Amino acid sequence: MIDEKGILFILSGPSGVGKGTVRKALFEKDTDLKYSISMTTRTKREGEQEGVDYFYRSKQTFEDMIKNNELLEYAEYVGNYYGTPREYVEATLNEGKDVFLEIEVQGALQVKKNFPEGVFIFLFPPSLEELKNRIVNRGTETEDLVKNRLLAAREEIEMMDAYDYVVVNDKIDTAVSKVQSIVRSEHCKRERVAKQYKKILEAD
Amino acid sequence: MIDEKGILFILSGPSGVGKGTVRKALFEKDTDLKYSISMTTRTKREGEQEGVDYFYRSKQTFEDMIKNNELLEYAEYVGNYYGTPREYVEATLNEGKDVFLEIEVQGALQVKKNFPEGVFIFLFPPSLEELKNRIVNRGTETEDLVKNRLLAAREEIEMMDAYDYVVVNDKIDTAVSKVQSIVRSEHCKRERVAKQYKKILEAD
Repeated sequence: MIDEKGILFILSGPSGVGKGTVRKALFEKDTDLKYSISMTTRTKREGEQEGVDYFYRSKQTFEDMIKNNELLEYAEYVGNYYGTPREYVEATLNEGKDVFLEIEVQGALQVKKNFPEGVFIFLFPPSLEELKNRIVNRGTETEDLVKNRLLAAREEIEMMDAYDYVVVNDKIDTAVSKVQSIVRSEHCKRERVAKQYKKILEAD
Repeated sequence: MIDEKGILFILSGPSGVGKGTVRKALFEKDTDLKYSISMTTRTKREGEQEGVDYFYRSKQTFEDMIKNNELLEYAEYVGNYYGTPREYVEATLNEGKDVFLEIEVQGALQVKKNFPEGVFIFLFPPSLEELKNRIVNRGTETEDLVKNRLLAAREEIEMMDAYDYVVVNDKIDTAVSKVQSIVRSEHCKRERVAKQYKKILEAD
């Protein structure tokens, strides 16, 4: 095999869409993927391990890292910081391993700015599918309800524009299988592979 | 499901790479794909059917179609024309079916000009893999032989640049499975899906 760098995949989507479920099912099937380990300022709980559950850092260290752009994204949640350290991601990619990041939409948009070469997958709620069917079939919903749903759908679609792929989470198995196809096909992208071939040929 | 147009996939690569074998294995697994039917000026042979094996046309008709840019690509071979009629491809895509075209590199480059929205897959010979290993491992080949192979590899790599994906045909099953992943993931591309969602929402 050619000496290829890993790819950073970002699985994201509106809250409640089932990102965690899809990610867990994916990791059961694909043991080659590495899950991105987050950094936090909250105290370590019993049974948790540094570098396994989280990287535990002081508030000062975390804020220094924010200043130095050493985080792909971060957020504050009930008084603590949570974020994705760039160094861990890049080191893992350099080992030729794919990194998988499951994250909220706001975090994903931060990652997009800091790591645009990532592959961004938007998990779409199955309710839009239903909504669409309702719209198409001109069902029995009141006009107001259809309008509200359309509005929410439109907001989601705006967020989608920063992403490379959209996967509808109607059935977990189908969604996982689509994400797996995306992972496999991204490794066949000419930009990635041709570069590697050329590098090897030029090295001669 | 959303009312999506089909995608034109072009499987190509240097002669002898095994395009036909991969295509046949793929069609055994994926019966939803439609194989592009070529047009020819050669006479119909016994057992062949119009619109199944080929579209049979006169030389005059074929040359008129060339003039009117009604062919995605064409070539002359032992006195007869062979080509891919644009109308058949577009009608099939409009039915929501994917069209699969297996073709030589020169033909693929013509299709790229006439139908840039197609998805171009370059099937890579496994011999380059071996070549690469030789280069990397600094094996026992003479310097001249390595140079000649590198030259051929370089020419192939130049052609690769027009393609979207590169699949190494080292094992048929692996190659077919990669092509299937490409087909599935292309249907998840945000540009395609978001457009469809927006169209449906705007139609309301």
